[in-house]
Amino acid sequence: MLMSGEEYRESLRGYSPTVFLDGAQINSVADEPRLAPGVAAVGVTYDFAKLERHQPVMVAEEQSSSAKVNRFLHINRSSRDLLNKLEAVRLVCQRVGCAQRYLSQDALNAIHQATYRIEAEAGGDLHQRFGAYLHRVQAEDLTLGVAMTDAKGDRSKRPHEQTNTNAYVHIRERRADGFVISGTKAIVTGAPYMHELLVMPGRNMVEADSEFAVCCAVPIDAKGLTIITRPAGRPGDDAAVFSGRYGQSTGVCVFEDVFVPWQNVFMAGEWQHAQFLTRAYACHHRHSCIGARAGFGDLLIGASLMMAEANGLDAAGGTHLRERMVELIKIVEGFFACGVASSTYGVPDASGCAEPERIFANVGKLLLSTQIYDMQRIAHDLSGGLIVALPGPDEDHNPQTAARLEELWQGKDDIPPERRRAVARFLGDITASDTAGWFSLISLHGGGSPAATSLEIYRSYPLEDKVALVESLLDRGLLDSEQSETETGDQPGRCCADGCQAPEEDKATP
Amino acid sequence: MLMSGEEYRESLRGYSPTVFLDGAQINSVADEPRLAPGVAAVGVTYDFAKLERHQPVMVAEEQSSSAKVNRFLHINRSSRDLLNKLEAVRLVCQRVGCAQRYLSQDALNAIHQATYRIEAEAGGDLHQRFGAYLHRVQAEDLTLGVAMTDAKGDRSKRPHEQTNTNAYVHIRERRADGFVISGTKAIVTGAPYMHELLVMPGRNMVEADSEFAVCCAVPIDAKGLTIITRPAGRPGDDAAVFSGRYGQSTGVCVFEDVFVPWQNVFMAGEWQHAQFLTRAYACHHRHSCIGARAGFGDLLIGASLMMAEANGLDAAGGTHLRERMVELIKIVEGFFACGVASSTYGVPDASGCAEPERIFANVGKLLLSTQIYDMQRIAHDLSGGLIVALPGPDEDHNPQTAARLEELWQGKDDIPPERRRAVARFLGDITASDTAGWFSLISLHGGGSPAATSLEIYRSYPLEDKVALVESLLDRGLLDSEQSETETGDQPGRCCADGCQAPEEDKATP
Amino acid sequence: MLMSGEEYRESLRGYSPTVFLDGAQINSVADEPRLAPGVAAVGVTYDFAKLERHQPVMVAEEQSSSAKVNRFLHINRSSRDLLNKLEAVRLVCQRVGCAQRYLSQDALNAIHQATYRIEAEAGGDLHQRFGAYLHRVQAEDLTLGVAMTDAKGDRSKRPHEQTNTNAYVHIRERRADGFVISGTKAIVTGAPYMHELLVMPGRNMVEADSEFAVCCAVPIDAKGLTIITRPAGRPGDDAAVFSGRYGQSTGVCVFEDVFVPWQNVFMAGEWQHAQFLTRAYACHHRHSCIGARAGFGDLLIGASLMMAEANGLDAAGGTHLRERMVELIKIVEGFFACGVASSTYGVPDASGCAEPERIFANVGKLLLSTQIYDMQRIAHDLSGGLIVALPGPDEDHNPQTAARLEELWQGKDDIPPERRRAVARFLGDITASDTAGWFSLISLHGGGSPAATSLEIYRSYPLEDKVALVESLLDRGLLDSEQSETETGDQPGRCCADGCQAPEEDKATP
Amino acid sequence: MLMSGEEYRESLRGYSPTVFLDGAQINSVADEPRLAPGVAAVGVTYDFAKLERHQPVMVAEEQSSSAKVNRFLHINRSSRDLLNKLEAVRLVCQRVGCAQRYLSQDALNAIHQATYRIEAEAGGDLHQRFGAYLHRVQAEDLTLGVAMTDAKGDRSKRPHEQTNTNAYVHIRERRADGFVISGTKAIVTGAPYMHELLVMPGRNMVEADSEFAVCCAVPIDAKGLTIITRPAGRPGDDAAVFSGRYGQSTGVCVFEDVFVPWQNVFMAGEWQHAQFLTRAYACHHRHSCIGARAGFGDLLIGASLMMAEANGLDAAGGTHLRERMVELIKIVEGFFACGVASSTYGVPDASGCAEPERIFANVGKLLLSTQIYDMQRIAHDLSGGLIVALPGPDEDHNPQTAARLEELWQGKDDIPPERRRAVARFLGDITASDTAGWFSLISLHGGGSPAATSLEIYRSYPLEDKVALVESLLDRGLLDSEQSETETGDQPGRCCADGCQAPEEDKATP
Repeated sequence: MLMSGEEYRESLRGYSPTVFLDGAQINSVADEPRLAPGVAAVGVTYDFAKLERHQPVMVAEEQSSSAKVNRFLHINRSSRDLLNKLEAVRLVCQRVGCAQRYLSQDALNAIHQATYRIEAEAGGDLHQRFGAYLHRVQAEDLTLGVAMTDAKGDRSKRPHEQTNTNAYVHIRERRADGFVISGTKAIVTGAPYMHELLVMPGRNMVEADSEFAVCCAVPIDAKGLTIITRPAGRPGDDAAVFSGRYGQSTGVCVFEDVFVPWQNVFMAGEWQHAQFLTRAYACHHRHSCIGARAGFGDLLIGASLMMAEANGLDAAGGTHLRERMVELIKIVEGFFACGVASSTYGVPDASGCAEPERIFANVGKLLLSTQIYDMQRIAHDLSGGLIVALPGPDEDHNPQTAARLEELWQGKDDIPPERRRAVARFLGDITASDTAGWFSLISLHGGGSPAATSLEIYRSYPLEDKVALVESLLDRGLLDSEQSETETGDQPGRCCADGCQAPEEDKATP
Repeated sequence: MLMSGEEYRESLRGYSPTVFLDGAQINSVADEPRLAPGVAAVGVTYDFAKLERHQPVMVAEEQSSSAKVNRFLHINRSSRDLLNKLEAVRLVCQRVGCAQRYLSQDALNAIHQATYRIEAEAGGDLHQRFGAYLHRVQAEDLTLGVAMTDAKGDRSKRPHEQTNTNAYVHIRERRADGFVISGTKAIVTGAPYMHELLVMPGRNMVEADSEFAVCCAVPIDAKGLTIITRPAGRPGDDAAVFSGRYGQSTGVCVFEDVFVPWQNVFMAGEWQHAQFLTRAYACHHRHSCIGARAGFGDLLIGASLMMAEANGLDAAGGTHLRERMVELIKIVEGFFACGVASSTYGVPDASGCAEPERIFANVGKLLLSTQIYDMQRIAHDLSGGLIVALPGPDEDHNPQTAARLEELWQGKDDIPPERRRAVARFLGDITASDTAGWFSLISLHGGGSPAATSLEIYRSYPLEDKVALVESLLDRGLLDSEQSETETGDQPGRCCADGCQAPEEDKATP
Repeated sequence: MLMSGEEYRESLRGYSPTVFLDGAQINSVADEPRLAPGVAAVGVTYDFAKLERHQPVMVAEEQSSSAKVNRFLHINRSSRDLLNKLEAVRLVCQRVGCAQRYLSQDALNAIHQATYRIEAEAGGDLHQRFGAYLHRVQAEDLTLGVAMTDAKGDRSKRPHEQTNTNAYVHIRERRADGFVISGTKAIVTGAPYMHELLVMPGRNMVEADSEFAVCCAVPIDAKGLTIITRPAGRPGDDAAVFSGRYGQSTGVCVFEDVFVPWQNVFMAGEWQHAQFLTRAYACHHRHSCIGARAGFGDLLIGASLMMAEANGLDAAGGTHLRERMVELIKIVEGFFACGVASSTYGVPDASGCAEPERIFANVGKLLLSTQIYDMQRIAHDLSGGLIVALPGPDEDHNPQTAARLEELWQGKDDIPPERRRAVARFLGDITASDTAGWFSLISLHGGGSPAATSLEIYRSYPLEDKVALVESLLDRGLLDSEQSETETGDQPGRCCADGCQAPEEDKATP
Repeated sequence: MLMSGEEYRESLRGYSPTVFLDGAQINSVADEPRLAPGVAAVGVTYDFAKLERHQPVMVAEEQSSSAKVNRFLHINRSSRDLLNKLEAVRLVCQRVGCAQRYLSQDALNAIHQATYRIEAEAGGDLHQRFGAYLHRVQAEDLTLGVAMTDAKGDRSKRPHEQTNTNAYVHIRERRADGFVISGTKAIVTGAPYMHELLVMPGRNMVEADSEFAVCCAVPIDAKGLTIITRPAGRPGDDAAVFSGRYGQSTGVCVFEDVFVPWQNVFMAGEWQHAQFLTRAYACHHRHSCIGARAGFGDLLIGASLMMAEANGLDAAGGTHLRERMVELIKIVEGFFACGVASSTYGVPDASGCAEPERIFANVGKLLLSTQIYDMQRIAHDLSGGLIVALPGPDEDHNPQTAARLEELWQGKDDIPPERRRAVARFLGDITASDTAGWFSLISLHGGGSPAATSLEIYRSYPLEDKVALVESLLDRGLLDSEQSETETGDQPGRCCADGCQAPEEDKATP
């Protein structure tokens, strides 16, 4: 059953989470204006799945049940699935800036992989249990938050070494019917308007950390769970032509003796697999981030061009305009290409889940995370300074000033002043406001800092193959004969084992 | 007479400008909370001039009268003056982000040069008249706004070709006692809390534009002048730990038949000199911008390091921290060096005014205008994402959440959570808010867009000397003998005429 | 029949081209030491096609004949073909720096498309004629040079306006059995050791240029064809450990009344299609360049790491080493990803030829063309300065100095001095010699300058869709209802028509 | 006595150093064609000092003797001296690429400082001894090589821990009349054509390293000294239009029991001062590097513009050309500005020597070291690919090809083909040859790697002042009253102690 955006919003009334916002508790998430932009943004992921023209990317068939499910609740089985997911993320973020719900998908895929791995190595029924959970979530068309980033406390210490145990979420008690957890997750995207949270470990662990190796699902209104949140976007600000409508909230999630029944528990002490789960999630999520920021880039490309034209720059002839536009396109399509390549080379693992190819996913994330600042710069270069310098909406209808301001907004003759003003405010909103700062920082640090992403690239890259390549050239006084070729380690592209072919996705997904 | 900041604020009560803000007229600029951060920022330029330790840079002796005047009302006479001005700008902006008042100085110097030039070429008494004005302004320790950027209308047309004549400020009538002007200036920094405005031409002109070649001084409450403005900084926002206290406003200034007596008129139709005045102002101003953004950079450097340390990165040993810090320093001191070099090579012209060397001033401005985005990126890399993700000040004293949030802010053991929270909000305020967007855009476009700045560099650079250098190498089959040396055009450094010495400022300023 | 590298070299004896090199005519291309590195590099494309492990990428089945052909003579029919071609180029360039022969493939594919288009629009048998030629070339396993870049003369004038008609190759005479051409092609890769040249138009044309709209195949020893060439790589230089073995030559090709029989003519005056052919070729070729430079990047990655380790930097722990390595990987895999994306979104046109998606191919080329300089910089940062500062090979066996030099080359204890010396010379050869300059310039300008590539991106990008997206947001006061969704132009990813799915290559290639 | 370039060359006959080049010993440095470009480059520093027009920068008055000396043998006493030195370096490098002799000056200044410091702290007569040496060197107008970079061996070990003692130059024996040293210095600029070498320590040391703390002067033909060198530039290559005439050699200098009399010894075990000397030298030298690369930049600027114009790009109107040229200028003048600022803020220390301000000197060096690659890129963007693709000089006079090649070189009608060819070869020589690789690497690593330079910046920067600034803002709830101002640590510009004035150089140099 696929819900509409409105049905999603209504469904939130079925929960009564404990949510604090700006110093006071709120009554109804569904009716709270300061959260409305977040609810609206997630809502688009529901609406688009019901639009026929978007269904090829927004709806997928779950292989394990043949059910039609929202793309953001689907387990990827092939290169094509990954590409469709990437496109789906770009599509919704093109409309709302950041649609948030793809995090559900990122986490479900990673837990799918990790539970399979644990079951394969250690037995038990974690993967089977997860399968049942997945089918319920898909059937109910839920949105799941990802509670991964712990409070961390002193970063030079491991979880079990912290003075304050709550610095990491951990198991307080194991019971016959489930376990009890406590601790603080610091940054949970969209927390108040999620149906459930997926609690996940955020780092590698050692044996002494085993009570911190926790993965489970928790309803948003579970007893003992408190959410301290922030407004989504910039609701109520007339100048926020975009972010007053669509936005994103984050919440601090405080767990105080929250009980979780075993059917919702997917990791309970398997510390050896914590890092696998964290890294797998990071890979799925960085791949999604690429699509998300490409959608945001589409907004910048369109609005920058409109603004430059309204200012009187000539799209056809102006070298300056053209060079800047191509710089912007180069950045956006350059990192999006990494998402595509990561999809193309993504192959299913033993669990049947296709993880995006890791190098490309991380390179794409690294590129976008630093280049978001360049994107702003180019948009500003094209827009000119008036996007932050002219009077705001309150002045639009002041009879004492409106006529002279309208004159001011009149640039090129054939573009109405309201249009120029609207585009200016749109660009100001998404590139030069609190919202812009938000986009910069989630691009840079969301899904892992540049340092973490770099480390993942370094760890995953087949450096030894490249060294072998150069060594083979040096050792043999360079290529001597074709016979000796058979002994050397050539590295065509990213795929190098077993004959260096392009990946054959179809064999993998009959 | 040097005023204090408080005296400056009080002095604003002596004026009754027509100011609209957020859709309504305001009564008292001195008492308006939404303008208070702007008044406070300008106030620091007064206070610092009264502090003995800052007087070497903040106070100067006006050569033409031997009066001690505020640095920001002084005519530069030497390389050392330019360097002191640069330092003074950095000093005040280090404290308030952007102190605005240096624009007074930029304009006074340019008008000094231009009126001298007009008088020298065409006779008249404009320069003498300006001298009298200058002495009054210095004696009263005023702050002057710069009304230069016209509304412009259709940018492909000259002033006299516009359908809407008000797109550029122009002379409506010449009378025996003065002239009458009309038109709109689009972006005037700090407009409401200035004492007077210096109206200046913003572009080159042809003879048909002569009625648009206007330079004069107008009291802020002149009859017929309406200011439509915006709040300065982010007053009233508890999260705005810095920009709630210091900020900058801009105003649209609408002139409707404003009368100006001749003693305040410094250009009235001398269209041949309009471009000279615009370019001279741009040069002084870009030089000032360098100091201003270096002061802002000092705030970023200090806060980024504090934040990184509070997060647990090790200032002494961490390569990542060190490399990022050095990148930030490299940017800030790299463009500041251009300001220093521009000062060092600045020499007095015939009017006795020392203009900053033009290439270095423009290169410095170009560097800062694009690198401000990199500065934000590096600050964010060091700060981590929590500067935008954690709950705001309203939550600080909520008894239901405060204890758990305090735990969250506790990072490295020896740094109190309030300190980490304060630095995080400080950085969030200046790098990830509306204020940050403001800083980006005024860095990029303030004092001229990157395209305009590039053009100035291209126009001013001694390209023909560099071509002559290569030609001399090619023509002679490369250097043949020392005799022939005497005929070639070597280009040591930026100074190349008359023997290539370092500039001897002292001869110029006995 | 697939030849080996040695058979290819022998096959060159079957031709007697007129070739000048360093001021004198040469007798036998196959035996000329100064051309040997070029012959060796092309030879690897033959040898690798005979190695079983490389055949999946190096050999393809020509759809129109079911013949097994070398990848570099194959017409791409699908996304997978494009990906295999990309991998094949990376594979061979990883071994030889630049294998050159992929240009044959680029040109064959473009001529396939263009002749189909001409035949479809204007009738005639050009496409059929080309098909016969293609099959012959595939059967004989030839290597074809691309003669596209004309001498150009005064670049502000069109071909027919030039004072010197030979500035562009043109038809001098049409006969019953063929046509006669004259003119100069300025830069032809590998000219002397090609079997035949494909003469192609290099720009858009107007009707008056119709005699310059020429595409045909010419044997390398055709009467009237003179080649003035340069050494391939740095043969005979002991320090050229890599480029003494593998390299690339270019030739000026002067056509003086060269007769071409009709069966080898593929365009003879169809000026309307000249630009189509040029742009299609550019697209195929830029896609190939991506693979080529990625292969070169693999050499840099491997050698830089080896050098850094030999110097004593620690691959496991050193942040500096790791950050630099990741920068290098980010560049190489970042632009390679564009090649992959271009392949993934490449779809067959009406002729059945799959052209690489144009935006991604051009973005990838633009990225590599400027970043090749950063690649050198990073390699040098890691290598240290001694790769250019220490004595050369002649000193290796000087009994008076060898012992002390060996001491000098001894860095980290467990790495033999000869190894460090060998890697240092290898890196010096490919990053700091004439060869390095060559790689920089062909990366920047080969296949079109950055300006030309930028223009292609600007022309091909769906800018109007991005504007429509923003307009739809602004017009409706932002998204109002799901109904209205059906009317707006969403832009998921690069593919946007007809439902926004990932490309279904398999339908196209049954 | 100031020598001419020719007299300098002749003076080399007075020495008989043991020099190996390309595997064999050479007889006369003054007559060796492979070293001639190095001798010619140094020669220009002599010739220019005799040209009246260059004397203001090329000749200085030594304060301690009132003698007129070559700028490159002078002890800087003031900001103006530093600026003149910077200009002098730019002047000579503009003519010859790299004039090398400024290293003499860098070392003399550093030894002046270090010996003063040792004498002040520990007594003795080292500084006095150095003064006598200095006067002799100035009187004889010598050129001194800097032998600093040791062989180093295993870089993770200190000098005294090396298995091979010769990895660092060290004292073997102390005698009544002098000491005896052994060991290998790996990279000595211009070694064979120097008059003497200044042996200097290259790193910090501990007490156990005291026998490695060595600084002394050694005649180039001292007994026991062997130099293994490389050709200077590219002598004998007709295509090397510039580097065939001017170039730079480096030599490995092997010391085997070389005796040095005490009057030439300036450090003999004072390990506590080794790092001071190394860092002081680095500072002087990085300041010089800035001038050197700016001179090289002047050649690139001139040649790129000439090439672009010869290709037909329009210097007046073309945006592409203008933007690229401004990028190039921005780089060159941007780092040169750091040299100027470093001079402006350079103040004499207790020894009376004015060291360049350290932050600016290092920032400038860091900027040039990475941007040299961008300079090449821009030059190549403007030049087009033919600078590496067209036939070489041997073809110029081949009657069978010359006419057609001349046609090819004819671009814009009013520029003769020989001119375009000459500029193309000039640019090819300095940006795309072995010489270009050389310039890249000495820019990157000469005077210390980017990592070393970054570390110096981090160590020298007043980070604590910036933290204090932000703390003062946070602690007082931001600026509360002017009184409290007196307690805070404002940071105007780079100079901050004692009232924040621009440096008053004249007081320091009466």
